[in-house]
Amino acid sequence: MKLHWSPRSPFVRKVMIAAHEMGLAERFDKVRSVAAATKPHVELMKDNPLSKIPTMVLDDGSPLFDSRVICEYLDGLHSGHKLFPAEPSARFVALRRQALGDGMLDFLILWRGERERQHPSDVMIASFTARKDASLAVLEREADVIASSPFSIGHVAVGCALGYLDFRFAMFPWREKHPRIAAWHATFNARPSVQANAVVDDS
Amino acid sequence: MKLHWSPRSPFVRKVMIAAHEMGLAERFDKVRSVAAATKPHVELMKDNPLSKIPTMVLDDGSPLFDSRVICEYLDGLHSGHKLFPAEPSARFVALRRQALGDGMLDFLILWRGERERQHPSDVMIASFTARKDASLAVLEREADVIASSPFSIGHVAVGCALGYLDFRFAMFPWREKHPRIAAWHATFNARPSVQANAVVDDS
Repeated sequence: MKLHWSPRSPFVRKVMIAAHEMGLAERFDKVRSVAAATKPHVELMKDNPLSKIPTMVLDDGSPLFDSRVICEYLDGLHSGHKLFPAEPSARFVALRRQALGDGMLDFLILWRGERERQHPSDVMIASFTARKDASLAVLEREADVIASSPFSIGHVAVGCALGYLDFRFAMFPWREKHPRIAAWHATFNARPSVQANAVVDDS
Repeated sequence: MKLHWSPRSPFVRKVMIAAHEMGLAERFDKVRSVAAATKPHVELMKDNPLSKIPTMVLDDGSPLFDSRVICEYLDGLHSGHKLFPAEPSARFVALRRQALGDGMLDFLILWRGERERQHPSDVMIASFTARKDASLAVLEREADVIASSPFSIGHVAVGCALGYLDFRFAMFPWREKHPRIAAWHATFNARPSVQANAVVDDS
């Protein structure tokens, strides 16, 4: 298996952490493919016309994307603890939490692009700010459940979203107002899978 | 069940078409919640801090989002033809195709926002154009497989993406260069589930 990969993409990081949790991190070749929203990546687009990473290519040549699809696929390749629970009530909590983490990443990535524009939109930045605050409030409210439930793809996604907040928006002191989810995030950061996939800014 | 809904959201349309295919379209109450990227929706955010639709609220009060999670949840509530195949090879083709349709919608929605800015970015518009062309090329290449495989959530997502292209980007004559996927899209548009959820522009 081949993985279009970059050390700074939070969605790639999500796949790498999930693969490490599953004992599968050594199973694919990583190809460095830097995908910027502003610059379509011609080689990558042969496998994924959306020009986004992570994109996986299976040994038979068939592509697999996006991070959710890759993670669910990988979860079927091992017999250990599953990150996608089979039991419906646990499964849909995990999937909703994955959607929250992924959705936070989506708007944080747009926010970063907005800040780099020549003419940033105040309205968009106010909208991103409101969604960031609301998302953190939900996570703080659910922190005890998050901390006590079996580790799932939802935990990976939320952990990566908070990690991206630290990486690209270090000016927001989110931990002060959200001590419980901050405490959970410290335990997430201590996992070997997360330590093995620290965010690297080599730009 | 309650569904935060709007007649013009392509991701809501995806859920409505899927629910109709499953015979579940009457099972939830639709609440009109217009979610613009520029304007966080305070009521909606009580159920989904991302301020996005579709968002479902189950009878026990627990929220469910985004469209992928809602569609998979609904697929577990009926005993007819499943839109999420259980068999892995069919499942991951369907999920990858869903990711392609959803990904097309993601950049088309951003493109529409870009066009409405006071200072649209030429670089972003060139990037959206390249990704639109590449996505259509992939769909044209896969059109025969798409047309001949059992109807799945991948078909719903791709059909909604092409419908959104017609709705918001009617200036692109995509059918001329992509006759096979255009022919498939005509069969998609003829389905009762799609007819029952025509795009309405009542703005």
